[in-house]
Amino acid sequence: MVKIEHAIQDDYADDYAWCYGCGRLNETGLHLRTGWDRDQTVTIYEPREEHKAIPGFIYGGLIASLVDCHGTGSAALTLHRKNGHEPGDGVDAPRFVTASLHVDYLKPTPKDVPLKAVGTVEEIHPKKFKVSIDVFAGDTLTAKGEVVAAVMPNTFIS
Amino acid sequence: MVKIEHAIQDDYADDYAWCYGCGRLNETGLHLRTGWDRDQTVTIYEPREEHKAIPGFIYGGLIASLVDCHGTGSAALTLHRKNGHEPGDGVDAPRFVTASLHVDYLKPTPKDVPLKAVGTVEEIHPKKFKVSIDVFAGDTLTAKGEVVAAVMPNTFIS
Repeated sequence: MVKIEHAIQDDYADDYAWCYGCGRLNETGLHLRTGWDRDQTVTIYEPREEHKAIPGFIYGGLIASLVDCHGTGSAALTLHRKNGHEPGDGVDAPRFVTASLHVDYLKPTPKDVPLKAVGTVEEIHPKKFKVSIDVFAGDTLTAKGEVVAAVMPNTFIS
Repeated sequence: MVKIEHAIQDDYADDYAWCYGCGRLNETGLHLRTGWDRDQTVTIYEPREEHKAIPGFIYGGLIASLVDCHGTGSAALTLHRKNGHEPGDGVDAPRFVTASLHVDYLKPTPKDVPLKAVGTVEEIHPKKFKVSIDVFAGDTLTAKGEVVAAVMPNTFIS
């Protein structure tokens, strides 16, 4: 299993690092972390016992959260690289919001195995990226997702 | 605000009542509850403080979880009614799984107001329903979703 050494979420400015899914400053959140694996993006997450749908399987909302934050993280990685930066180089990373999220649940996702989201990023506008995502439970592809992520507008917090 | 007196999730058989999103037996879960409001389905949820994206706004994964469980709950309500039953009449409700989930995030969803998902259900196959969902934060429409839900196959747990 790939280890994410430098994640884009490590470099979000403090004001933008509170997301329940991927914010490093959210005490009770999932702390999803997304990094490069060659030219693809990867997020790894080991669900908690409580994240079940029925005993033995993971609930759909957790997969959706993984796809969502993996999507915005992948877009941020891509724009950061386009701007000449990599996670860990000391420069704040751009922050994206989700415009749309789609998940096809291909088969039940078993618990007690780490989940891995693998993303391929396509620029569709200077400030908008489409991320195609495969979600694996161990070696088994259990869901496919697509996220359209847009640079967070200043109006979001003003 | 509508009060959900009898929710379909109250009538899921115990074995199927563990979902982190909507299972009444999941101790730490969200306990989403879905009922009829005339011919539409409604789920109301007040996010926790930790469910933020950035301070002041709700993270996308929570909206996705709400849409997801509201979708399967709405399909279950519809099939249950088709079978001649209503929540609270003492008959176990059918249980659905999510085949696909789509969410369009129209605007930031503010925190500190209850969220309301309102669904319209269309049968697309005897064992498959499509649910169109509007998510309101207070009176403001902030997201639109679509769920395709399928009757849980026996193979899911065998």
